[in-house]
Amino acid sequence: MTTWIFILQLLGTVAFAVSGAMTALRKQMDILGVIVLGLVTAVGGGMVRDVLLGLTPPAIFSDPVTVAAAVIASVLVFIPAVRRRLLKTRRIYELTLRLADSLGLGIFTVIGAQTACGVLHDSSWFTVAFLGTMTGVGGGVLRDVLAGDLPYIFHKHIYALASLGGALVWVALHHWWSESAATIIGVAVIVAVRLLAAHFRWSLPKAKEEELI
Amino acid sequence: MTTWIFILQLLGTVAFAVSGAMTALRKQMDILGVIVLGLVTAVGGGMVRDVLLGLTPPAIFSDPVTVAAAVIASVLVFIPAVRRRLLKTRRIYELTLRLADSLGLGIFTVIGAQTACGVLHDSSWFTVAFLGTMTGVGGGVLRDVLAGDLPYIFHKHIYALASLGGALVWVALHHWWSESAATIIGVAVIVAVRLLAAHFRWSLPKAKEEELI
Amino acid sequence: MTTWIFILQLLGTVAFAVSGAMTALRKQMDILGVIVLGLVTAVGGGMVRDVLLGLTPPAIFSDPVTVAAAVIASVLVFIPAVRRRLLKTRRIYELTLRLADSLGLGIFTVIGAQTACGVLHDSSWFTVAFLGTMTGVGGGVLRDVLAGDLPYIFHKHIYALASLGGALVWVALHHWWSESAATIIGVAVIVAVRLLAAHFRWSLPKAKEEELI
Repeated sequence: MTTWIFILQLLGTVAFAVSGAMTALRKQMDILGVIVLGLVTAVGGGMVRDVLLGLTPPAIFSDPVTVAAAVIASVLVFIPAVRRRLLKTRRIYELTLRLADSLGLGIFTVIGAQTACGVLHDSSWFTVAFLGTMTGVGGGVLRDVLAGDLPYIFHKHIYALASLGGALVWVALHHWWSESAATIIGVAVIVAVRLLAAHFRWSLPKAKEEELI
Repeated sequence: MTTWIFILQLLGTVAFAVSGAMTALRKQMDILGVIVLGLVTAVGGGMVRDVLLGLTPPAIFSDPVTVAAAVIASVLVFIPAVRRRLLKTRRIYELTLRLADSLGLGIFTVIGAQTACGVLHDSSWFTVAFLGTMTGVGGGVLRDVLAGDLPYIFHKHIYALASLGGALVWVALHHWWSESAATIIGVAVIVAVRLLAAHFRWSLPKAKEEELI
Repeated sequence: MTTWIFILQLLGTVAFAVSGAMTALRKQMDILGVIVLGLVTAVGGGMVRDVLLGLTPPAIFSDPVTVAAAVIASVLVFIPAVRRRLLKTRRIYELTLRLADSLGLGIFTVIGAQTACGVLHDSSWFTVAFLGTMTGVGGGVLRDVLAGDLPYIFHKHIYALASLGGALVWVALHHWWSESAATIIGVAVIVAVRLLAAHFRWSLPKAKEEELI
């Protein structure tokens, strides 16, 4: 189980770093900007969660493997030859990225909920689910704020909702069933909702423009 | 006294949530974005204060009533019928919102100063006033950064100054007189300055454009 | 040694405050905005570092001298007569500002690394260098995010790299030689790289536009 989680977490880290590095490239940043934005996207959510929980210094500071994975992924994205190779098979590239990104969202959310539950023994389901969601979507929000974009959770279809839903599922199953079941099903729910939402272009209701002030 | 503070704080929470939800609607966000931005505006200032004071996890995590109030207020703003009803009597709506917002600023600032004073026994007046002001204006700054606007404290008339002034009044009265007097007069000063500044369009000096580099 | 560090740190604080105040003036903010942005730029990096290290409340809260220096510098920048006087001798002004800014970056980075090393006894070189760099560049990133600019570390030549390089030099010398040597040489490296990079317009590689997605 632990090895599996480690591998999935690494996959998520790489996917998040790639999305940060891609954003930096689009904004014409140099190699350092690409690495910084890749790193922030990959580790930002967990760092904010640890600070809120009082787990200082954040766990990422003693986890060189995760940091190295994020840096290497960002550098690879920066190299033109690698980017061209990825782009030649754009369809495969996009599918892989989306799958890894969904897995990352799922794993990060569930790990966030687990961490919160371990620290706050008598905490409410609300706090645990909130911190799980923040761990899952936090890195992407930091990426967008630093890059000057509107944070993606405000317009990307169902992204944050998938994370919140999975966190709530984890809390419920963890309470009434078992930790392993909660982890597996929680991640599965997030990945499924995220992929289905992306495929069918689900969206949440918006106010109609003419009705606004 | 405590019940009064609770009611006023709830009013402030609702007003801040409404201002966040309104911003999200203006930015064409969907229902989730409206709730997230409403919630962040309402609870952001207190959360940042608690992290700076080392009060982790922040108090809001064990305060479901405040969170629920912020979420419900945001959802109500999202519903077209409610928005239309509010807009029909635009004048009353704006007056109510401004009054609630001023009360929120006052209450949040004073509570922030109180919290800082309770944690940092030997702290300087400067630290206490700073943390009070940060509690009062922090949620609005987070709202604007996330929505991609210039933070309102940088251009809204006298807003932050009212908060800082009230915090300093609280510190002085709390030291030389009594806590209740400090609370009531501190809130009153902030509400009065804020409302007078909005009514008479007071503004702070700006550098003239031709003089700039 | 300590007096020297205190003086250099004050110089760095003033330089950072001036850069924040200048940004605020460029954005047409009023006097309060100028002070807030000057203060955030000067103390933001150290504040974020202290929160990440669990040193709450941050050290700046009990350091009125540094806060006063940042506020006074910001107010001076706001006064037209002072600004005109500075601008009459623009060359000297720019050289002074750049030198002070470089010294500030150097001093803040090394102090950040020292602080991290003192708190995290068994910490890796990576964590210490990271927190040093964050202390050095953090205030400027906050300034740019609040002012709605793309953070300067993403495009300013070699800025963050100078800070990171100096932090790594500090870590190495501190480990294998002595603390004083590490401090002096670390600051010198950062100042030298920063000034040389600005003079020769060094830049890091960027992806070519046509290669981007």
